Amino acid sequence: PLIAVLPGDGIGPEVTTQARRVLEALDLGLQFEEAPVGGAAYLVSGRPLPPETLTLAKRANAVLFGAIGDPRFEALERQLRPEAALLGIRRELGLFANIRPATLFPGLESATSLKPEAVAGLDIVIVRELVGDVYFGEKGRRHNAEGLRQGYDVMSYNEAEVERIARVGFEMAKRRKKKLCSVDKANVLETSQLWRDVVNEMSTQYPEIELTHMYVDNAAMQLVRQPNAFDVIVTGNLFGDILSDQASMCAGSIGMLPSASLRAWSGDNGMYEPIHGSAPDIAGQGKANPCAAILSAAMLLRHSLSDEASAQRVEKAVAGALAKGARTADLGGSLSTTEMGDAVLRELV
Amino acid sequence: PLIAVLPGDGIGPEVTTQARRVLEALDLGLQFEEAPVGGAAYLVSGRPLPPETLTLAKRANAVLFGAIGDPRFEALERQLRPEAALLGIRRELGLFANIRPATLFPGLESATSLKPEAVAGLDIVIVRELVGDVYFGEKGRRHNAEGLRQGYDVMSYNEAEVERIARVGFEMAKRRKKKLCSVDKANVLETSQLWRDVVNEMSTQYPEIELTHMYVDNAAMQLVRQPNAFDVIVTGNLFGDILSDQASMCAGSIGMLPSASLRAWSGDNGMYEPIHGSAPDIAGQGKANPCAAILSAAMLLRHSLSDEASAQRVEKAVAGALAKGARTADLGGSLSTTEMGDAVLRELV
Ligand SMILES: CC(C)[C@H](C(=O)O)[C@@H](O)C(=O)O
Ligand SMILES: CC(C)[C@H](C(=O)O)[C@@H](O)C(=O)O
Repeated sequence: PLIAVLPGDGIGPEVTTQARRVLEALDLGLQFEEAPVGGAAYLVSGRPLPPETLTLAKRANAVLFGAIGDPRFEALERQLRPEAALLGIRRELGLFANIRPATLFPGLESATSLKPEAVAGLDIVIVRELVGDVYFGEKGRRHNAEGLRQGYDVMSYNEAEVERIARVGFEMAKRRKKKLCSVDKANVLETSQLWRDVVNEMSTQYPEIELTHMYVDNAAMQLVRQPNAFDVIVTGNLFGDILSDQASMCAGSIGMLPSASLRAWSGDNGMYEPIHGSAPDIAGQGKANPCAAILSAAMLLRHSLSDEASAQRVEKAVAGALAKGARTADLGGSLSTTEMGDAVLRELV
Repeated sequence: PLIAVLPGDGIGPEVTTQARRVLEALDLGLQFEEAPVGGAAYLVSGRPLPPETLTLAKRANAVLFGAIGDPRFEALERQLRPEAALLGIRRELGLFANIRPATLFPGLESATSLKPEAVAGLDIVIVRELVGDVYFGEKGRRHNAEGLRQGYDVMSYNEAEVERIARVGFEMAKRRKKKLCSVDKANVLETSQLWRDVVNEMSTQYPEIELTHMYVDNAAMQLVRQPNAFDVIVTGNLFGDILSDQASMCAGSIGMLPSASLRAWSGDNGMYEPIHGSAPDIAGQGKANPCAAILSAAMLLRHSLSDEASAQRVEKAVAGALAKGARTADLGGSLSTTEMGDAVLRELV
């Protein structure tokens, strides 16, 4: 199988290197091909997502993605900014399902700002829709009737878009505790009301799943009050962006959290990336935590290569390294990125 | 001065009664006139916001609002639901500035799910825009080209709308620690990009204020990691809805948090309400915490009656009651709503 490696900006290359080392150590006969993306690609080619990079991503069996974002390019027009590459790959590859697990590894309780009773045993999955919502609707600038500058973005979902992501949520719940919480803002938004209607209609196909609905403001509150009361959350692109970053804090560090972006439950063309960003402030210093990237590689094994055994080997190796006290700076330790990678590799049995 | 009292649904009447008792005890010669709103109004008149209620709200010097929301009416069409009353008053009275302080009263540290070092000395103000954004844009249902049901909501701001709320943020920062954090999603949304541009343009008028920008996903994360690092946050309607509910958890209980909705920094026609909802599960049981309603009355004194001294008397009375150990169930105690009101009244010196 061919793995496209897109390291990107900031700490992206550093953490992706460690994830690739772990995949190589498994000796599965994987091929790797690397290409620039984000600010790094803009620098060499004037575009954040060069056609060759997109072609490679489409051709590969899976994409291992680092991070994008570079303050030097924030003033560029939107389609030239690093973020455009990430949004472009998601859309072009049809990666509508973003799976974001938030798990508290034993030993990291003290790294979170929440009390132990709120996060003990934390094991949530946020299923976020990734190619619709206000992210991809019509948007622009115009002058209104009074000649004032106005910015606008259209939020919308159609029933097919809601159905396919809700199905991922229901299927995920089926494999876990059979509890699904759908998050929306149906008391204000028509988009959310359609979302809620469709999810309710589908629930008759999943009588064994206990479905609840929660408004997004309440969900943000409950994710602070008692995060470990959640199991599977399904929500739209914008709310999922906010809630999954928030939930990451319950896991000790955003440096621990992987993600998968899929166009089907399993199979080709998934993209795997840490949920953290490019962290320009610590880029190039060898300080970044590679665990999120390594755990993303585990998700790659699980979803794109259907190799559950190898996925679990990698996850256990990360847990093992943490159990032995391996910690990067974000977790209160002093290991470098490479040393943390070494610690995980030593546990890979 | 005339105070319109709109108790609303669920626990609204219970907590509003206590807030009114406190205002009456101050002996300021206030007049009170009560009117139904929300589900309570729908039940008696078939409309959540009867014209007489709106007229009273406009005629009064200030509105003391309880809470709205009643699950019995969730299936009604949008403009008949309780929420329509709240959105209607905000829009009709032009209450564009929603001020939501989140303060941790000494003694409530143990009521929060966050570790003491994350919330010690917490004293944040969230300034939320309240009459624009995706809340009030064009919205509806339609069938798309393929005949699929589609829901849509238009998000937008124009420069005048951004300017007036940003000004409230800057002015608030000026009276506090001179730090303003503007929250948006400018890496994806055009509405946010205009927001950011306008806030940046205005910052030259406030050279003494240290202005920062933060993406909403990051803000949700930082509000868990280190909430007491924030001072004043200014943001749009949707992001403000989510972040202020989230921040409320840092203050121990959503039952502690007041809000003011204003059309000017001070003066008539402000509306004052707890940020909690109608809590149908505990309605009528005398369990609700009236502190948020009482502290909302303090904001009424401050903003609509320009009576800072009385506002502080009320705030000190709440702090005094808490210091003596008065606690409702949400704070781990056993006082009833009325008993908590009594405890505050006893401290009113
Ligand atoms: C970089 C940004 C466009 C992106 C998003 O908002 O989706 C990021 O926050 C994420 O969650 O992957
Ligand atoms: C009830 C609802 C419409 C309202 C809102 O979203 O504004 C509430 O959550 C609030 O924050 O006052």
